[in-house]
Amino acid sequence: MSLLTIGTVAFDAIETPFGKTDKILGGAATYIGLSATKLVKKVNVVSVVGEDFPVEYITMLEEHGVNTKGLQVKKGEKTFFWSGKYHNDMNTRDTLDTQLNVLENFDPIIPEEYQDCKYLMLGNLVPMVQKTVVERMKNRPKLIVMDTMNFWMDIMMPQLKETLKLVDVISINDEEARQLSEEYSLVKAAKKIMEMGPKFVIIKKGEHGALLFYREEVFYAPALPLEDVFDPTGAGDTFAGGFIGYLAATDNISFDNMKRALIHGSALASFSVEKFGTERMVGLTDEEVGTRIQQFVNLVQFDITI
Amino acid sequence: MSLLTIGTVAFDAIETPFGKTDKILGGAATYIGLSATKLVKKVNVVSVVGEDFPVEYITMLEEHGVNTKGLQVKKGEKTFFWSGKYHNDMNTRDTLDTQLNVLENFDPIIPEEYQDCKYLMLGNLVPMVQKTVVERMKNRPKLIVMDTMNFWMDIMMPQLKETLKLVDVISINDEEARQLSEEYSLVKAAKKIMEMGPKFVIIKKGEHGALLFYREEVFYAPALPLEDVFDPTGAGDTFAGGFIGYLAATDNISFDNMKRALIHGSALASFSVEKFGTERMVGLTDEEVGTRIQQFVNLVQFDITI
Repeated sequence: MSLLTIGTVAFDAIETPFGKTDKILGGAATYIGLSATKLVKKVNVVSVVGEDFPVEYITMLEEHGVNTKGLQVKKGEKTFFWSGKYHNDMNTRDTLDTQLNVLENFDPIIPEEYQDCKYLMLGNLVPMVQKTVVERMKNRPKLIVMDTMNFWMDIMMPQLKETLKLVDVISINDEEARQLSEEYSLVKAAKKIMEMGPKFVIIKKGEHGALLFYREEVFYAPALPLEDVFDPTGAGDTFAGGFIGYLAATDNISFDNMKRALIHGSALASFSVEKFGTERMVGLTDEEVGTRIQQFVNLVQFDITI
Repeated sequence: MSLLTIGTVAFDAIETPFGKTDKILGGAATYIGLSATKLVKKVNVVSVVGEDFPVEYITMLEEHGVNTKGLQVKKGEKTFFWSGKYHNDMNTRDTLDTQLNVLENFDPIIPEEYQDCKYLMLGNLVPMVQKTVVERMKNRPKLIVMDTMNFWMDIMMPQLKETLKLVDVISINDEEARQLSEEYSLVKAAKKIMEMGPKFVIIKKGEHGALLFYREEVFYAPALPLEDVFDPTGAGDTFAGGFIGYLAATDNISFDNMKRALIHGSALASFSVEKFGTERMVGLTDEEVGTRIQQFVNLVQFDITI
């Protein structure tokens, strides 16, 4: 089934204990797209870049199955830029620089050919822009998944909660879940967030895996224990891309299929962190993905007769 | 199969965000014993208390299947006492008071009837006392599991490493694994620790579950997401008790059976934190344990055809 994602397409400059990069390709929609196209043939993107954005990045995305018809290129403007430095634990980071540039006045225009999309991924962006995209879909998609971040909770919680009412699944990390719900316990947090709109709540815990809550049920997808985490940038987006990519590919939104989707998201995210930026995702083969999924099965599989 | 555990039998005074207790029953061997006896008929304990230790506690332990023949009662001396206060996140705590008392000169005497024990749990204690117990067993047990803590790493790492050479399984938390191995990555930490003696390394991550490493393999047992954690005291010992209790009950030390043992340990630990001290474990029924194990199956079970 057809999949549409919105989110940033950006430049990142990243510093980790393992090294640093100049401006490289980044952005939520980039990671979501590269991840989802491992599972579904085509991912339609709505985003915006400036005229400084290299055409070879667009070519690369297209070659991977990312449809960039909805990627606006703004003449005389510059691409969104983010720069950050990870601490030694790799779980926390400082933002060194953020230049909104083209994002400041981003009007998300949805190409006519995207209108039949049944799966919509709202990558991290201004909540009002996410809401506008939902409103501009002529038919409500079968499933809407939303990502967001603490930054929007700090400065525009009311608007974020308006967008939240429109979605089926929210994917956030543990600290964001606590901030959004004002509950420390993640079980309580998920219950409160379900009352805000989403029927499904995904809480990402980084190296500790992710939880999927639905009604009274909960599913725990582990993260693969890794020798080294090289660069966590984009791991959450890669996870989201794998999740919705699997759902779109199988066109099944049951809780049991969401469990499988979560495992696929976790597996793809485990690749993303192995190299800087999008490097690992660009070269990833289907065989590698299959082997990694099997590792996840082995990681949690046990056999108990009760 | 017969099981022997050593460890403290103690008084604890605990303060958490949910309340505080006076001196209540605590200690590693207490929690290990109460947990293991849910799975195996009898647990033989070697430990020491003072004459201030209430006889009703001994009666209660005996009624639960804890054999206290190896519990020395020292006339004119006082029982080990620990007092601590948990922070709001429940993952960190301050020790308010530690009175070693009878532990200062503890000589672990093993009753003759314990000598046939095939499963030996070295609960957290001075590493030299743990080593003495291993040396005093006339036949080497089939499986020796060791728990320890950062405190011993701070003050007697060389002695701790000597004991480590004698054991099959070590059970420690993530921070302790990092301190012991001087590696941040838990995968690297486990590899280094395996070179120190144990064939199996269990790394406990509190609310994030536990990892079991063996050769190149790894198994991830989740923790059950809970609405409230009332009192984490003894959770690690309860986990260890469930782990070795299951192994002793099934008399099977294969990697696959250790996975099941880890799930049993996690399930029992998830009860322990629901009330202060040993309260929840004392009243626990077999039916409750069975239901909880099923919850763990549901929590991680998924079905993927690759």
